[in-house]
Formats: sequence, structure tokens, C-alpha cells
Amino acid sequence: MTDLIASLRDEARMAPESGIVEVVSFGRERADLIPLWVGEGDLPTPEFIARAASASLARGETFYTHQRGIPVLRQALADYHLHQFGKDWGAERYFVTGSGMQAIQIAVRLVAGNGDEVVYPSPAWPNLPAALEIAGARAIPVPLTFADDGWTLDADRLIAAVTPRTRAIYLNSPSNPTGWTADRDTLQALLGEARRRGLWIIADEVYSRFVRGGLERAPSFIDIAEPDERILYVNTFSKNWAMTGWRVGWLSAPPEIGQVVENLIQYSTSGVAEFMQHAAHAALTDGEAFLAEQVRRADLGLEIVTTALGTTARARFAVPRGAFYLFFGIEGEADSRALAKRIVSETGVGLAPGIAFGAEGEGFLRLCFARSPTDLHAAAARLRDWIAR
Amino acid sequence: MTDLIASLRDEARMAPESGIVEVVSFGRERADLIPLWVGEGDLPTPEFIARAASASLARGETFYTHQRGIPVLRQALADYHLHQFGKDWGAERYFVTGSGMQAIQIAVRLVAGNGDEVVYPSPAWPNLPAALEIAGARAIPVPLTFADDGWTLDADRLIAAVTPRTRAIYLNSPSNPTGWTADRDTLQALLGEARRRGLWIIADEVYSRFVRGGLERAPSFIDIAEPDERILYVNTFSKNWAMTGWRVGWLSAPPEIGQVVENLIQYSTSGVAEFMQHAAHAALTDGEAFLAEQVRRADLGLEIVTTALGTTARARFAVPRGAFYLFFGIEGEADSRALAKRIVSETGVGLAPGIAFGAEGEGFLRLCFARSPTDLHAAAARLRDWIAR
Repeated sequence: MTDLIASLRDEARMAPESGIVEVVSFGRERADLIPLWVGEGDLPTPEFIARAASASLARGETFYTHQRGIPVLRQALADYHLHQFGKDWGAERYFVTGSGMQAIQIAVRLVAGNGDEVVYPSPAWPNLPAALEIAGARAIPVPLTFADDGWTLDADRLIAAVTPRTRAIYLNSPSNPTGWTADRDTLQALLGEARRRGLWIIADEVYSRFVRGGLERAPSFIDIAEPDERILYVNTFSKNWAMTGWRVGWLSAPPEIGQVVENLIQYSTSGVAEFMQHAAHAALTDGEAFLAEQVRRADLGLEIVTTALGTTARARFAVPRGAFYLFFGIEGEADSRALAKRIVSETGVGLAPGIAFGAEGEGFLRLCFARSPTDLHAAAARLRDWIAR
Repeated sequence: MTDLIASLRDEARMAPESGIVEVVSFGRERADLIPLWVGEGDLPTPEFIARAASASLARGETFYTHQRGIPVLRQALADYHLHQFGKDWGAERYFVTGSGMQAIQIAVRLVAGNGDEVVYPSPAWPNLPAALEIAGARAIPVPLTFADDGWTLDADRLIAAVTPRTRAIYLNSPSNPTGWTADRDTLQALLGEARRRGLWIIADEVYSRFVRGGLERAPSFIDIAEPDERILYVNTFSKNWAMTGWRVGWLSAPPEIGQVVENLIQYSTSGVAEFMQHAAHAALTDGEAFLAEQVRRADLGLEIVTTALGTTARARFAVPRGAFYLFFGIEGEADSRALAKRIVSETGVGLAPGIAFGAEGEGFLRLCFARSPTDLHAAAARLRDWIAR
């Protein structure tokens, strides 16, 4: 370590490099690459959404705007939730953020700092533990368990990980990368414990709309909670409306803490561009047809991938209940980082190594199936042949 | 304080509400309002910049992109700095951020956390001390001194405020709100001290191009420093190119710490939209004529305001050497918050209270003169008459 790096704050210099990016950097130049390693689809943002941004720009809406989000978008968020959950919790609880990631960063800052602990099921999206550690807090993983019928969370085990230093439970359901999706009983058990212990819940329901079996959405804390509880919902426009590159998300929180949330927005990025917010508004108000098509496409993608991998006895996976990833293992392959590099070198299929999602993900690979059937057929065939070689 | 607020992290709930916003909220509905309270001009972003974003959107550039910024923009930043400073420090040191504010947030996270101290001249932009305190660090103000010939910094006094806990010196020059602009000797003294003590410098040179007297730019640490020193330069597209609402800025740092910077970007907002970056690129490559016009307009604005206020013996101010604010007092008026509210109520001129910039700003008001001559003539006349009433 050089002097310059040594002179940085410990928590900053120890923040891990993304284990996904490591493999992407290794394999991105491969000819015939089919990149299934990152969490985004292959469709650009729908034109009607992009047009809303361009129209706002053409109107000269380039000045500072509301730190909490423009009123019309906050109201649209309230309407969207009313439609999805049948609960009218009002517009005042919605805060527009510069990505779902920033919603998590703000949630972390609201509840956990130096020496505090946050428990979460793992494997998990690595940015959550990283955001916690950078803030000086400790991320405490609790293993999900894999079996032939899928991933399960032992809620008692998660509860047992709570200590006097625990400030919050982070729950990502449907889960990236495993597709594990909490049922209502599990949500109830966690909420009950959080209430008893005075804990916050950070509810990451980003993949809520991507569920199997024709359901409209996954079970949510919104179904069982009161609006003024200690729950911070973090979400994004990225996945539902193919807006990954935009960096626009939202935080839903009790309005009572609104000024604190606004201050944290003010002192981190000072809000989101008005023209981006008009695009997000278009997505919420006119985006259901596109979203339905995305979900249908993901269902088809999952079928393509599981059908192909199901023909080899060495692939281990269960059909995920939610999100758009297949998290699978290959018998006899324990080192996911080396495996992902070999696979991209030898087949051109880009996969994320399970170890990037925590020690509990080792031995697995994450495949994003939010992609065209053509690409997925090709990728699945290459993987099948490689595994069976 | 309610239970819900009490259950938040101390540093979050104690983050101050902006003292500027408080007065804006109080006075924004006033008829005939001339708003000179926030730090933005009245011109929308030039059309050629907005068009670059719309064109990128139309090309479907809506996917995840480089966390450090797209290569073409990083190279344009290198070219811009080469042109401004005559130093070719390469593209690898530039990191595109989601606002200048976020560049500051990342700089803070790089060098100062729990219990660390950062010294800075005050009055100062309040978001800096707030960002420090939210991170658990202590912001240590060192007073600038006001006299008839302007604000001055006693560099020895700033150096004397350094303790074993000090990790960095934050220097905003030209300064918001005072217009104080460091000369080369002062920069040299501070850099020398930082070198001796192993401190970082956070150099906020956002207003570097807004200087009086036909200079092209203010003195900068870039003039006297090496590229691999412990200096983090924070900057923004907001002021130079009328892009306040966009939230795009940059951080310039030694390339050696690039991976750490990238990780902090990844775990806060995960980068800036590609289409925004093409707009920023257009600003850098084709924006000099617009910027020159903005500077000319600010010079004229300053003259309008100081000419009018100079006719009353009660206004206390010196002509600022940089930035686009007049920071002035009115004899016999000590409470700037009450004063700003009275003035907006009685004249419709919106000013920011000096206390919003720290205790050292009490008794002053900040007037932004990056505005049309018509508005400034009207505002200055109303202020002159009110003061002389």
C-alpha cells in the first residue's frame, strides 16, 4: 500500500471492489460475448420516457428544484402505491433519490453509523454491505439455505443475529441474486421482532414486480405495516422501466422524518434533475404495458435458461420465485471467481461469480435472464455444452 | 422530539436545515419577488448543451456506464485543465460525480470520518460543514476578517487551528459567500503546512472562472502543486454553464487512489447518466463563449448592485474579488435571519441571511448578482430605498 492510499480513511480504502466488475473487466473484450453478468436488461429506456426528459429540457427546466422531488412525481408515486397495494399513504412520504443505491445510502445514514450493526440475509447484493461498512457500521450476514426446492430464510436465525448493537434489518425481497422471495409469514415474523426490539427495517423491494406465476407483485411490508412505522422502503426506476443508466430511485419513509431525509439529500447530491423526474413520472403513469412486457420476457427467459441447464445433471438450481436472475451451481466447481472467468473465456457467456454476493454465494453463478430470447437461447446452449463437455 | 425521530442516528437528525431555504420558504410567495437568495443565475442551460443530452437519449444511451465517467468526458476535463492551467495531468485523475456536492461528499468520505477534524475559513457554504458532521467528523471554522478593503484570511490562524485530529483543510476560493479569493502566497502557505503535517486539502474551486478585472481565472492549487499530492479538487458544471439543476460535477484526485474513488461512487449513486455526461462534454468543448458572457454579465451585475448600495452610507461591503455574490451588512442590523425576512416582506428582494453561512456570517446578507441587469436594477433600487427609508 502506498503512502497516499494509507493516508485515506480506513473505511474508504477498505471498501471492496465489486467482484462482478472484476470478472467483467477480465472478460469484456471476448468476441461473441453474451453479457449476462450485470443486473440490467438489453432494452433501452422506452421512447415515451426519454421523450419526457427531452421535452422538459426543451422547456428550459434546468434550474434547482425541490430537494424531496417535484410534487407531481411524488403524487404519482403515491398513486402507483395505491394501485399496487390498495393503501393511500399520501405523497409526503416519497422522496426522489439519485438511484436506488442512493436511497440505500440515505437509509443507512438515517439509522446506522459507527459501530452499529445491520443484519441481512446473504447471498445479497454486495452494495448494501459495502454502503454500511463505508458508513462505519457492521454488516452482519445471515445465511439463506439452498436446497432443491430453492433458497429459504430461517427467520429465527436472522432474529438470533440481532444484538444490542443492531439498529436495522435489511431485507431484499425478491432477492438479488437468489430470487428468494419472502412470504407474508416471514415478513410478519421480522416485523414483529423489529417492533419488539425497536429496530428499523430497510425494505428493498426493487424486484417486487418481477415474480413468477402471473402474480402482480411480491408480498411486501406495505401489506402488513402501518405508514408511520420504522420502515424505510428503497426502490428504483431502473429495473421496471429499463432505466438503469438514469440513476433515479425513491425512498418511502414516514413523513414525520421528512426534514431529516431532505437534509441528507441536500448534503449528498442536492436532489435529482427536474427533467429526469418528468421522465420518471412518465414511467409511472404510462409504463404498465412496457413493464408487463418486461415481466413476460423475463418469464420466457427463465424458461429458456432452465430448460437448457436442466438437461445436464451437473447444474444445481431451483426456479427462482422472483427477480430476474438464475443463481446456479455446477457440481464439482467450488471457486466461482475462477469458474466465471473460465466460462467467459471458453464460451463467451458473461456470468457474475457467486462470491461477489458474499461468502454464502460461493460455488454459485448469477445469470441475468432479462434479455432477448435469441441471446438467451445461444447463451444457454453454450453453457449446457460447456458443462456437459 | 418524537420517538421516530429520536430513533434516528444522531448525526442524521442533527444535520441542520438550510438557513437559506428557511428564508426562501418564508418569502417565496411574495408578489414581485426578485429572488437573489440562491446560488444560480436566471439563464437556463444553453440549448447546445441540452441538445447533446437529448441526442444521447435518442441514441438509446440509457444503460449502466463507466463508474468513473465516460472516457470522452474525462479526456475533455483533462483538456480543459490543460488549457486553463498549462498542465497536462492526464484523464485518469478525473471522476465524474452527481454534482459538486457529491464530489465534496466523496472527498469527505475519502479523508475524514468519526472524530476527525477538518478546518476551513468561515463564512462558508453551509453544505460543507453539514456533510462533515453527517459523516461523524467535526467541522472547525476559522474566521475570515471583514474590513473596508474586503475579507481576509489569516493563514497563520487557520494553521493554528490544526490539531492532531485534523485530517484536511477545506478551502473554497473564490469563496461563497464572501468572494474572498486566495492569492498565491496564501495557497503556498497552506500547501506547505499541509505537506509538513501530512494533511489533505479539499480544494473547492467552483467559482474559479468568476473573477474580477478581466482575469481568466483565480489562483489555484494546481498552479503550485504536483499531480500526486494529497489534494482533492471538487468542482461542478453548475455555475460556469448554467447547469445548476443537472447535478453533475467532478472530482480531480491522484490517479493512484482511483479505485477507492470508484468504489465510493459505486456505493453512493453508481455513476452519472451517460446522456448527462454528453451534455457536460458539450459544455466543456463548446461552452467558452457562453461562460465569457456569464462572467461579463456578472461583472455588470456587480456594478449595478454596488453602485446603488454605495449611495447609502448604511450599507457595508467591499467589492468581492471572485464568485458572484455581494456579501453585505446594513449598519444597525445584527440579526440577519430577521433582516432577510423583513427585506423580502417589505421589498420583495430575496436575500440569503449571513448566519446561514456560519456564526462568522451573522450581520451580513448574501445577494447573488448572476442575473439580468433589469432585475438587478430593480432589486438594487428597492434595497437602496429601503435602507435609506
